[in-house]
Amino acid sequence: MIIHPAYAVEPWCLRETSLDLSVLAQSESVFALSNGHIGWRGNLDEGEPHGLPGSYLNGVFEARPLPYAEAGYGYPEAGQTVINVTNGKLIRLLVDDQPFDVRYGQLVAHERVLDFRTGVLRRQVEWVSPGGQGLWVRSARLVSLVQRSVAAVCYEVEPQDTAVRVVLQSELAANESLPPSRGDPREAAALLAPLRSEAFAGNGTGASLLHRTAVSGLRVGAAMEHHLDAPPTVEVSNESSPDLGRVTITATLEPGQRLRLVKFVAYGWSAVRSPPAVADQVAAALTAAVQTGWDGLVHEHGAYLDDFWARADVEVDGDPQVQQAVRFALFHVLQAGARAEGRAIAAKGLTGPGYDGHAFWDTETFVLPVLTYTAPRAAADALTWRHSILPKAEIRAAQLGLKGAVFPWRTIAGHECSGYWPAGTAAFHVGADIADAVVRYVTVTGDEPFERDIGVELLAKTARLWCSLGHHDVTGGFRIDGVTGPDEYSAVADNNVYTNLMAQHNLRSAADAAQRHPDRARELDIGTNEIDAWRDGAKAMVVPYDQALGVHSQAEGFTRHEIWDFDATTDQRYPLLLHFPYFDLYRKQVVKQADLVLAMHLRGDAFSAAEKVRNFAYYEALTVRDSSLSACTQSVIAAETGHLDLAYDYLTEAALMDLEDIEHNTRDGLHLASLAGTWLALVPGLAGLRERAGRISFAPNLPAGITRLSTILCLRGSRLKVEITARTTTYRVLDGPALSLLHNGKHLTVPATGPVSVPNRRPPTHPPPTQPRNRAPRPHRAAT
Amino acid sequence: MIIHPAYAVEPWCLRETSLDLSVLAQSESVFALSNGHIGWRGNLDEGEPHGLPGSYLNGVFEARPLPYAEAGYGYPEAGQTVINVTNGKLIRLLVDDQPFDVRYGQLVAHERVLDFRTGVLRRQVEWVSPGGQGLWVRSARLVSLVQRSVAAVCYEVEPQDTAVRVVLQSELAANESLPPSRGDPREAAALLAPLRSEAFAGNGTGASLLHRTAVSGLRVGAAMEHHLDAPPTVEVSNESSPDLGRVTITATLEPGQRLRLVKFVAYGWSAVRSPPAVADQVAAALTAAVQTGWDGLVHEHGAYLDDFWARADVEVDGDPQVQQAVRFALFHVLQAGARAEGRAIAAKGLTGPGYDGHAFWDTETFVLPVLTYTAPRAAADALTWRHSILPKAEIRAAQLGLKGAVFPWRTIAGHECSGYWPAGTAAFHVGADIADAVVRYVTVTGDEPFERDIGVELLAKTARLWCSLGHHDVTGGFRIDGVTGPDEYSAVADNNVYTNLMAQHNLRSAADAAQRHPDRARELDIGTNEIDAWRDGAKAMVVPYDQALGVHSQAEGFTRHEIWDFDATTDQRYPLLLHFPYFDLYRKQVVKQADLVLAMHLRGDAFSAAEKVRNFAYYEALTVRDSSLSACTQSVIAAETGHLDLAYDYLTEAALMDLEDIEHNTRDGLHLASLAGTWLALVPGLAGLRERAGRISFAPNLPAGITRLSTILCLRGSRLKVEITARTTTYRVLDGPALSLLHNGKHLTVPATGPVSVPNRRPPTHPPPTQPRNRAPRPHRAAT
Repeated sequence: MIIHPAYAVEPWCLRETSLDLSVLAQSESVFALSNGHIGWRGNLDEGEPHGLPGSYLNGVFEARPLPYAEAGYGYPEAGQTVINVTNGKLIRLLVDDQPFDVRYGQLVAHERVLDFRTGVLRRQVEWVSPGGQGLWVRSARLVSLVQRSVAAVCYEVEPQDTAVRVVLQSELAANESLPPSRGDPREAAALLAPLRSEAFAGNGTGASLLHRTAVSGLRVGAAMEHHLDAPPTVEVSNESSPDLGRVTITATLEPGQRLRLVKFVAYGWSAVRSPPAVADQVAAALTAAVQTGWDGLVHEHGAYLDDFWARADVEVDGDPQVQQAVRFALFHVLQAGARAEGRAIAAKGLTGPGYDGHAFWDTETFVLPVLTYTAPRAAADALTWRHSILPKAEIRAAQLGLKGAVFPWRTIAGHECSGYWPAGTAAFHVGADIADAVVRYVTVTGDEPFERDIGVELLAKTARLWCSLGHHDVTGGFRIDGVTGPDEYSAVADNNVYTNLMAQHNLRSAADAAQRHPDRARELDIGTNEIDAWRDGAKAMVVPYDQALGVHSQAEGFTRHEIWDFDATTDQRYPLLLHFPYFDLYRKQVVKQADLVLAMHLRGDAFSAAEKVRNFAYYEALTVRDSSLSACTQSVIAAETGHLDLAYDYLTEAALMDLEDIEHNTRDGLHLASLAGTWLALVPGLAGLRERAGRISFAPNLPAGITRLSTILCLRGSRLKVEITARTTTYRVLDGPALSLLHNGKHLTVPATGPVSVPNRRPPTHPPPTQPRNRAPRPHRAAT
Repeated sequence: MIIHPAYAVEPWCLRETSLDLSVLAQSESVFALSNGHIGWRGNLDEGEPHGLPGSYLNGVFEARPLPYAEAGYGYPEAGQTVINVTNGKLIRLLVDDQPFDVRYGQLVAHERVLDFRTGVLRRQVEWVSPGGQGLWVRSARLVSLVQRSVAAVCYEVEPQDTAVRVVLQSELAANESLPPSRGDPREAAALLAPLRSEAFAGNGTGASLLHRTAVSGLRVGAAMEHHLDAPPTVEVSNESSPDLGRVTITATLEPGQRLRLVKFVAYGWSAVRSPPAVADQVAAALTAAVQTGWDGLVHEHGAYLDDFWARADVEVDGDPQVQQAVRFALFHVLQAGARAEGRAIAAKGLTGPGYDGHAFWDTETFVLPVLTYTAPRAAADALTWRHSILPKAEIRAAQLGLKGAVFPWRTIAGHECSGYWPAGTAAFHVGADIADAVVRYVTVTGDEPFERDIGVELLAKTARLWCSLGHHDVTGGFRIDGVTGPDEYSAVADNNVYTNLMAQHNLRSAADAAQRHPDRARELDIGTNEIDAWRDGAKAMVVPYDQALGVHSQAEGFTRHEIWDFDATTDQRYPLLLHFPYFDLYRKQVVKQADLVLAMHLRGDAFSAAEKVRNFAYYEALTVRDSSLSACTQSVIAAETGHLDLAYDYLTEAALMDLEDIEHNTRDGLHLASLAGTWLALVPGLAGLRERAGRISFAPNLPAGITRLSTILCLRGSRLKVEITARTTTYRVLDGPALSLLHNGKHLTVPATGPVSVPNRRPPTHPPPTQPRNRAPRPHRAAT
């Protein structure tokens, strides 16, 4: 297996044991730290060399015009692009006037370790300067999960054989120059110098900068303070300018002497508050961090993570690589969502500028299931963000001549930012995906206040959309024409099965929720006529099925299209979207990512077991996985249809998406949905977890090679541990009340007092499905 | 009827008897002169006031980048925009130092007359200067149909009561400033100062300018010379600079004395030739024009037009307005195509910058049928231009992964310039439209050398496209999925009836032509296998039909879509594309322009008479005519299905599109296809002219109100006059051999020796179809 040769396989950390500059940008993404509010890429402390410098604040973006060769009514005029805010990570080191730069001198030893339990990124370097001076540099960095405005670095330098004069420059740097964009449309639009200085100050060992973005008008403050542990001869100076705050520490170190610098950094931003208000907010956060101190920050951060792992850990015996990958994945999913609070969880979290920093349906469909079971507060926060942008979604609906809410296909602040409507605006399923996430969250947590205050309105306003988007045809069938489903190699089709089934679920769930909360329904002007219309639409929903082939048609007409000439398509022509026009992709049977197969996961109740087997075989032969939103879903359905080896292969692909840079764009940030997909492939996949009609069910089965799978889930205030071996599954309530669930379709009560063990049921076997030429997943066996 | 109050209804000219500055730009379009190579808008001689100054050379464009908010593979990167070249029309007049400007002083009398027989635009003005000095100004202007590089102006000024000092400035002006664009996507992109000076010269009464476009690198030369008839006290001076050549004539005129200036202007351009070569070419053309003299130019121009009218005239008794409109239309269609020769005929000819100066399928489907029967050489030239861009069309096909040729949706020089692929690239029917025009041209003219040298290759390479674009499905049907038909309120649909039937015709015609020209087929590598494949595809072509409704479905699934809510759509929301998103238009039953109905015109053989009646009624109720490419086709099928009054209404709408500025954009240029549509509504419409399987057929019928319709057609070297009255049609060969044709389906031979009269057959009557609310055509009766 071609793995980054320097990443060791260990259960609780990611360790890099040598520095390969050709994959530096990728390493900056995998070593990124974030709490969902602040994001710091894993750039080297000294700033250079870098792949892509990156410091982000969730919600801070710059607006830019969206150009069109031929404009059209309703096209969004402005886009939103995440910007690289003030860099607070920077600590430059000079050794006898030689800058510490790993490209010069000799890097004798290098190690970076991201510890998933402590949440601290540690680095140890042994370096000989071009002048022959050996020294050790050690740093540790965290972005606090407890104090959401705070990050910190602990930096140590120690000479080896002879005394050296060292100069440390600890900086706040705004408007860093970025490497030029590669022109890949998935990458962020380059925004040069997006920050305009409003104030700067420096004093003693502290400094602060205040900026504002030119067009979006967001005010961004950053401040730093330091603790210094150094020989008495140390000298400190301070300088600041509009885009730079710098504290310079000069000392001469004897062998055995150490200079230790703790840097505390605080951030704040606002679209509305005044410069003094933002500056004060940042200063307050900084003061609290300084008072907590480095050890205090590390301690409380570790405690937060201990609590998380107690609610979320997954153990995979028999495959150390997947074991590591799922913890890596859970760590990053937590980082993306933990403290996002009133803001979106972007497709790349805060790990890079990919996709312009936008949030998509990925959040609700892939990331929130994980958070719902492991960090439910973060899931509620994410849905509360959707609730907060409802006014914008209602304005957008009105602009499009529709009722209810049209959520943006891609956005930072809530406005539609998609510049290609067939794959953006037309992908209305995002509304149903949000509704699905609401229903799942309420089912899993039983959080009634959330359902009343947030859920009912989200369900009702998305249901309204479906009623105005669909229509009853002459035979009474409820059709949703001309929309785009998840598969981005099809667009603007009639009655996409995924969309229609998710809309059906949305309509029914809205009707149920409105009837459970009649007061809220009254407030939202939901009458019985409207509820009846929702149920009528759901009941009459058209679901295309190809009788001749005995499979569901992804959308009307799909199965009559020409099948893509896979045999003539060489490896070099993937991803297809970079080598073939949309018109060609849209008109043929070729699937970028699970679509009908995703419907079988999320709406499994709408398919018989036999249909699932036939559909899966049919769509496997058409699916090329040019999207990272596919392998995990294919894994889930492969497991359900009894193809456990194939499920394992797809699990491995989802798990290694970023660790092995499978799509060659991890440099721009991590694939949060694929990381979440590692968990999905293990828990909904191998453990067979589903929520259906308010019930939690399992159907566990392990592939050969995984000897034991254990997962902890938060369920209605209890912690449930599910432990699966080849033949048996054991359910255990770790704390909280007893739980009622389904095991292979049969009711099972798990008492609070002790475990229950039940046998697994092997699914019937079927001939293995085939994939397009060269598109089969790599066999997982190579991973062991 | 709201008609421009100053346009008188006269049979052989368009006369404007007062100047309304609010419709000045429209008048510049209707009074535009062109020979297909040079175009001069009807700007006032003195340049200001103007609606839109415009001087064009066919093929001269500037390239500009096409921007995309989200780029995609195969999107064209550069667009082409027609530019306003050096203005040679300008003659400014100063009267005692007061500039002659109709906005000042008093315009006592104004008349402009465009005479369709002489082809000269004459203007007569009586003006009193702000200083109280009265004078007469008369000008006449022509763009020579005989000397294609030449235009000329004859300008006279004469004082009324007292002597005046007049100064005439006759200019060549490059890079004129243009009024700002209104942001309507149909308008040309504003291109400021597109010309870079390469040379300028002036001497005596002559001057010349040589420029080059910055990006497209086209070299443009313009030169002028003058003949002066003036009192002996006249003084002449000359000055020139990079963007201006100016000859100034100063004279004092007594009452009764006249200053007469004849201005000769020559143009030339080249993408490859050197500055001296282009300058010499322009100088040579100018010398020839000067030697011909004004009277000579007028004479030969008139003789050219006499010849045209003898081949093309249409007489409409009973409706003077339609009589005028059809001659206006024929005149402008001739102007657009007469001397285009190796260049395209743009949607607006050379009358304005609308649609960026691009040519579309309009040319082949609407304009060429007229030219084929009235100026067949021009039709052959236009198709020869298509042949000349075949190499570009083959490159485009390869880029899209297709075989054969993909002609651009919109272009000037042959490259695809559409920036929105669902309504551009996906509209592959343009290839079949070209093939159809080839077949029609060969059928009507019997031009075998053209078929061999040009036709076979165009037919074969478009047929190849269909074979690679379509596929045989499991039942053997030949499907063409995911393409866009003529109706721009639908896109990217499966098996559009129009596209499939036109492709079928294309495939069969290519097979026939290849078998008629075996040597040529060998040269083009057309084997029997390929011919068999063409015939197989044609034979198995899928044509969607809705059994339940008993009508053809415009494309698969169309008749199951929701019907547009016409009753809720107020007048102010048309055209719909400016008030509703494409996504909404595409997914509902609403038709911008004839699509299935156009198929019934061009492929009438594929429908039974009863199907035509039912289909027409169904689609009438859905068609909003937001395109100027619709009324004429609806008129043709209304006539065929016996709705003669409705046919008359649509005829009138097509006829008055520009004269009454029905779409409010005549300012940007004339709607050539709608002008041609006037003839189509009369000849294929009321006279029922069709070409089918090599035969010419008629099925004449007049609506009440038109008492006699007579048309002359060029047919296989003969001139045929067809004269229709209420009950009888008389066919007469004016010169050339006897002709064989069909009259109401029966063979009829028209001898060279004398006329044949046969009775008309009234079609069966059906209930009149209805149109969407407020979208019925204005009843024609108001026009009388």
